[in-house]
Amino acid sequence: MDIHPFMKDRPMRLAGLDWPDESVGLAGEPDGDVVVHAVCNALLTAADLGDLGTHFDTATPEWEGASPTLLLTETAHLVRSAGFEVGNVSVQLIGERPKLGPRRQEAQKVLAAALGAPVFLGAATPEGLGFAGRGDGLMAIANALLLELPGYSR
Amino acid sequence: MDIHPFMKDRPMRLAGLDWPDESVGLAGEPDGDVVVHAVCNALLTAADLGDLGTHFDTATPEWEGASPTLLLTETAHLVRSAGFEVGNVSVQLIGERPKLGPRRQEAQKVLAAALGAPVFLGAATPEGLGFAGRGDGLMAIANALLLELPGYSR
Amino acid sequence: MDIHPFMKDRPMRLAGLDWPDESVGLAGEPDGDVVVHAVCNALLTAADLGDLGTHFDTATPEWEGASPTLLLTETAHLVRSAGFEVGNVSVQLIGERPKLGPRRQEAQKVLAAALGAPVFLGAATPEGLGFAGRGDGLMAIANALLLELPGYSR
Repeated sequence: MDIHPFMKDRPMRLAGLDWPDESVGLAGEPDGDVVVHAVCNALLTAADLGDLGTHFDTATPEWEGASPTLLLTETAHLVRSAGFEVGNVSVQLIGERPKLGPRRQEAQKVLAAALGAPVFLGAATPEGLGFAGRGDGLMAIANALLLELPGYSR
Repeated sequence: MDIHPFMKDRPMRLAGLDWPDESVGLAGEPDGDVVVHAVCNALLTAADLGDLGTHFDTATPEWEGASPTLLLTETAHLVRSAGFEVGNVSVQLIGERPKLGPRRQEAQKVLAAALGAPVFLGAATPEGLGFAGRGDGLMAIANALLLELPGYSR
Repeated sequence: MDIHPFMKDRPMRLAGLDWPDESVGLAGEPDGDVVVHAVCNALLTAADLGDLGTHFDTATPEWEGASPTLLLTETAHLVRSAGFEVGNVSVQLIGERPKLGPRRQEAQKVLAAALGAPVFLGAATPEGLGFAGRGDGLMAIANALLLELPGYSR
């Protein structure tokens, strides 16, 4: 699970996509993409590699202008270098907006291309309940299925 | 994950069962059954079929009087038609009430029969915390394990 | 998922470890360890054995001074007696503090030794959002992967 508050005067980047019609973005480095972060952390935890903070200093300027999915590609590289193949990843966004539905397949394609494995993306509305329902931020939940490659000592 | 607020003057339908002793029901179409919805969306996402809203217009009158588990049976049919077998589904309810424990096995049987695959049902109390702890609504989290059948092009 | 409120005048026990620098503990029996409870309930649900309350009366004095991981060891025994091998368990803590990062590997080792199977432990901060963000309590989410042993009738 990953959680990020909304942040004014910042472009919305979510699920590997830009959302120019949104009036707020998400707090968090490099761009607050809660879907990408949840997927990366699920992958890293499953591979016993810690989390994003263990590997990437995303508050540096070089990350600020990076591609939305660079974090995912770099994470996939770490996981494979540790001797795992990525079976697939599922991830769900919980929030009132932006509405992911119309761009779900577009986002899935972008995420899967960056990961090099299938990504299954869903969304749910919190129906006005909790911090996500009040419009304070977004939450994403991801599960990663890894396959152990033979010949690696773990 | 699926989330539904409580709703007055509505019968409680939850985990495929009727709960005549409850004084409120759940908002959402057709009957707000947050457990069934979470399971259906987990199945549909795993099969890359979108979500309930993609396939069913459950706000129509024909769904109003439908069996509590029709949505689950119809979803299972979609998933199998797309070339998957359902391995199993796990789902957990988070809320203060109704108390699922005494009817857990009954609910599991009803859900598994509708799905045609094992369902593992659990429950947790939010201990007074968050929207579920304040009694504003219920939340359910589900994971679906699908097996790819050979001979389907995906 | 398991949720426990913070509780004053109680030592913090979390993820199988003691945290002597924390000024509050967690409510719940025997010691409120929300990580251990989430793992145990994931295991019991996956094995169709109900939950902790079905099997253990942890409010009794004998549990008060028990080892932090006794509940996990006893749960693993139940699951194996029912004919399952534990593949692995993943669990994530959501809360502002204590900070799990520096003790993540230590906690993983303790949990894995008690379970007799790999445990993958992660953590996320709620970034000030929701009950965990306000510092009212902690939440943990766990998934258990079980393998059916042949020769058991279920």
